[in-house]
Amino acid sequence: MTSIAMIEAAAERLAGHARRTPLLSSPFLDEIAGRPVFVKAECLQHTGSFKFRGAFNAVSALAPDGVIAFSSGNHAQGVALSARMKGIPSVIIMPSDAPAVKIDNTRALGAEVILYDRATEDRDEIGERLAAQRGLTLIKPFDMAEVIAGQGTTGLEIVEQAAEAGVSDAQVFVPCGGGGLSSGIALALDARAPGMRMHTTEPEGFDDVARSLLAGAIQRNNQLSGSICDAIITPQPGNLTWPIIQRLAGPGQVVTEEEALKAMALAFDRLRIVIEPGGAVALAAALFRPGDGPVIAVASGGNVDRAMMVRALST
Amino acid sequence: MTSIAMIEAAAERLAGHARRTPLLSSPFLDEIAGRPVFVKAECLQHTGSFKFRGAFNAVSALAPDGVIAFSSGNHAQGVALSARMKGIPSVIIMPSDAPAVKIDNTRALGAEVILYDRATEDRDEIGERLAAQRGLTLIKPFDMAEVIAGQGTTGLEIVEQAAEAGVSDAQVFVPCGGGGLSSGIALALDARAPGMRMHTTEPEGFDDVARSLLAGAIQRNNQLSGSICDAIITPQPGNLTWPIIQRLAGPGQVVTEEEALKAMALAFDRLRIVIEPGGAVALAAALFRPGDGPVIAVASGGNVDRAMMVRALST
Repeated sequence: MTSIAMIEAAAERLAGHARRTPLLSSPFLDEIAGRPVFVKAECLQHTGSFKFRGAFNAVSALAPDGVIAFSSGNHAQGVALSARMKGIPSVIIMPSDAPAVKIDNTRALGAEVILYDRATEDRDEIGERLAAQRGLTLIKPFDMAEVIAGQGTTGLEIVEQAAEAGVSDAQVFVPCGGGGLSSGIALALDARAPGMRMHTTEPEGFDDVARSLLAGAIQRNNQLSGSICDAIITPQPGNLTWPIIQRLAGPGQVVTEEEALKAMALAFDRLRIVIEPGGAVALAAALFRPGDGPVIAVASGGNVDRAMMVRALST
Repeated sequence: MTSIAMIEAAAERLAGHARRTPLLSSPFLDEIAGRPVFVKAECLQHTGSFKFRGAFNAVSALAPDGVIAFSSGNHAQGVALSARMKGIPSVIIMPSDAPAVKIDNTRALGAEVILYDRATEDRDEIGERLAAQRGLTLIKPFDMAEVIAGQGTTGLEIVEQAAEAGVSDAQVFVPCGGGGLSSGIALALDARAPGMRMHTTEPEGFDDVARSLLAGAIQRNNQLSGSICDAIITPQPGNLTWPIIQRLAGPGQVVTEEEALKAMALAFDRLRIVIEPGGAVALAAALFRPGDGPVIAVASGGNVDRAMMVRALST
C-alpha cells in the first residue's frame, strides 16, 4: 500500500533525475475557463510523460538486475530510459503490429524490444519465461506500489508550485487510465494539501473510473479501442489504484474527443506546450466545464504524432 | 553600460515573477547533432518569449508612472504584462496593419493600443507626444541597459542549469535580432562561465550581426521583410548591444528558413515545446551545423500561428 512516506522517498530518488516540470498558466486560459487555470506540464518530463517517474522510482527502489515491461506506449519509454540511467538491461514486450516509430523509439532508449503476435501468442507466457530465464523484474504500468509512489511525486510538486503561486485550495484534474497517476496524486494531496481534491478525467465512452465512482464498485469499459486518447485507455481501474481513488477522489470528469483536441490547440496557442489527446483531457475539463476557484490540470503526456497535432490545430 | 551586477539585480527583481524556464534535452536530438544538445525553453516564459524578462526588469528598476513601447510583437506583450503586474498603465504603439490577433492579445494583457498609419504618420512623434502628455517612460526593445540586464538573467539560469547537468564547457547559441538577449547572455557567461561562449544565430539573408562580426563594424540588413523569422529581424545591431557582442561573441551562426522549420518540428517531436521560426534558429544551428562538445540553444519564443506550425510539421 502506497503511503505518503513512500511518495517522499520516491521524490528523493527522483531528485536530479526526473525533471521538476513547470506549473504554467495564461491569462487567456483563465478567461476561457472563467477561473484561474494552472497546468502541470508533465509532457515536458523525460520521455514525454509522467510514466518516467513511476518507472524510475520502481527501478531505483527495487534495484533489480534487469527489468521487463509490457507496453507499446509511454510506459515502455519510461522503463527503457530508467533502466539505461540505472545501467541495467530492459526488455520491452510489444505486439508485432505496434507502430514502427514506437518500436524504434523504445530501442533507441536502450531497450531490447521483443515482438509477439497478438493472435497466436500469449504475452504473459513470453514475459514469465523471459523473466525467469534472465532474472528480470516486471515493472507494471500502474498497479504496483512503487510505481504509484513515483507518480505521486507529481502531486508533491503541484502542492509546492501552487503555494508559490499563492494557491492552496483547488480542484486538481488528472487524466486517468489505470489510475497510477490519479491515485499517487490523490495520496499526495490528501497528506499535504487539505484544500485540494483530485478528480479523474476520462474521454467519453471510456469513462470506467467515473462510472466506478458513481456505482461505488469497479466498472469496466465496453470497448478498448477507437479513441484518439489511446494513452489512457485501460479495461478498468487497478486493484491497488481503485481503493485509493474511491477513498480520495471527487466526482470524475468526462470530456469529448473534440474538447480534448481543442485543449491541445489552446495549449499550443497559450502555453507553447505539446499535449497528446489523452494528456489533454484534464485541461479540456478545466477549460470547458463550469466550476469555481482555481483548477490545476495535469498535462500528463506529449507523445502525439504530427498528423494528430495538425488535426488539432485545424479544428 | 550593463554589468554583471545589474544582471544579478535583475535576477532578484524577476524572482517569483518571471518563470525559471527549464533546460531540456533529448537523446534523439543528441543523436542528430552528434553531440549533447540542451535547449533553454524560453518559449515557456510569460507571454511566450524572453522579452518579458527585460521588460519586467526595466519597469521594476525604473519604477515609472506608466510606460510606452513601439512594438507589434513579443516586446509589446512583455511590456504590457509587466506593467499590469506592476499596476501601472501601458501604451503600445502599433502600425494599423498589424495582425488583429496581436492587437487583441496586447489589449487583453491590459495595454492601451494606439494604431498609426505607417504611410502618413510618424510613430516617434506620436510616441514623444504621448509620453510628454501622460508622463510615460519609453521601454525600448533592446538598446537599453536595464532591458539587456533582464535578458541576461537567462544566461545566469543557463549556467546554473548546465552545471546541474554536469556541463561547464559549451557553445551557447542565441537567436539574435537587435542583440538584447545575445548581449545579456554573453555578459552573464563572461562573468560566470569561462568555459561557455555565446554565438549569435540568424536566418540567411538577415545576418547583419554575423557579417558585422566578420567585418569588425556594424553592417545593415539589405531587407527587413520577407522572412518567416520576423521576430528577430532588425535593421542592424543596437548601439549598446553591438560593443558587447563584438567583444564577447564567437563566430555568428546562420541557418536557412528550411532548417528553422525542421528544428521546430523536431522540438515538437522530442521536447514537446512550441517554438516560433525566429526562436528556432539557434536549435537549428545546434542540430545541423557540425561541432564538438555540448551546445546549448536558446528557444527564445513560441508565438507562432497555427498555420505556420502546420507548415513546419508538414515539411
